[in-house]
Amino acid sequence: MTAGSPLLAELIEAFRCLPGVGAKSAQRMAFHVLERDRTGARRLADRLVAAIDRIGNCRQCRGFSETEICNVCASPARDRSLLCIVESPVDQAAVEAATGYRGLYFVLLGRLSPLDGLGPSELGVDLLGERLAQGEIKELIVATNPTVEGEATAHWLSQLARDAGVRATRLAHGVPLGGELEFIDRGTLAHAFGTRHTLT
Amino acid sequence: MTAGSPLLAELIEAFRCLPGVGAKSAQRMAFHVLERDRTGARRLADRLVAAIDRIGNCRQCRGFSETEICNVCASPARDRSLLCIVESPVDQAAVEAATGYRGLYFVLLGRLSPLDGLGPSELGVDLLGERLAQGEIKELIVATNPTVEGEATAHWLSQLARDAGVRATRLAHGVPLGGELEFIDRGTLAHAFGTRHTLT
Repeated sequence: MTAGSPLLAELIEAFRCLPGVGAKSAQRMAFHVLERDRTGARRLADRLVAAIDRIGNCRQCRGFSETEICNVCASPARDRSLLCIVESPVDQAAVEAATGYRGLYFVLLGRLSPLDGLGPSELGVDLLGERLAQGEIKELIVATNPTVEGEATAHWLSQLARDAGVRATRLAHGVPLGGELEFIDRGTLAHAFGTRHTLT
Repeated sequence: MTAGSPLLAELIEAFRCLPGVGAKSAQRMAFHVLERDRTGARRLADRLVAAIDRIGNCRQCRGFSETEICNVCASPARDRSLLCIVESPVDQAAVEAATGYRGLYFVLLGRLSPLDGLGPSELGVDLLGERLAQGEIKELIVATNPTVEGEATAHWLSQLARDAGVRATRLAHGVPLGGELEFIDRGTLAHAFGTRHTLT
């Protein structure tokens, strides 16, 4: 397939570590960078190495950070009475991009999943307990995914909050904006129907 | 969007040099490698650098090669009387993967396109003329793309071949195997109808 160059074959294979990249896309990417964008490819290589070497987890929120305490945790502009709990850094990025949320985050780096060996200690319960005990947090916004494991995690978090005397809230579930009832899954529709609210 | 890490934002931006990767995919790739596959990402970075630094063009066929003469041109198992002309290395890879072709290649690295400043000299006409003059080649297989510029290039190549007394052939055009007439573009269908052949 890559007549004449073993290095090219290795590059194509290496591209397959990326999500959503199969044999065809990997080949296309390798030929594209070699034929048309060697500068961009070198920049990508440099930044990959820099990111792998220097991005770790914030000591306070466990999100991605290249410093010990991330920019969000360190920012004086953030509301320290709000703590939003998400499963992963990508969820944190989604909340940050979509909402005007100006509080702090806590990243579980997983969800309660005994089969995968993920229990409270792996999810940073010590760190979270400390934060709750400090008394600065007034509201715990539980933004775990609405999956079976995410809901179990949310339930566990709400108990933690109750024990610490902190109010816990959960993101609303229901019909997505712009969605049509016809195409919405039955579970979501039943939930939205059951939790209907009064029009004012 | 990438709360807390400028390096992460830079990595996401760098991923966009890849074909078919927009803002969303780039973000997904960056978070994926950081969260789940740092080893794969480092391998990708290493191989990118190795490929950029060491893959150049074969002095004989102008295809990708990490040596002065590529493996295909150097192989004693290849039929030196056949020369297949393609526009780019990726076309060469496609022919190599799909067909049982065992001859040699010549890569134009473009197509005749005066507006883009691509004339015969950019397409390696000197090198190709030399090859044809050596008298070893008996058939020139013109595998440029069936686009306007590709057809113009094919026409030019056929004249070169005629001048050198070499037989030039062109890939067959027509209805793709497994295609349905209903969904085939009119140009292709008209061409296939016009060049119909006798069933034997």
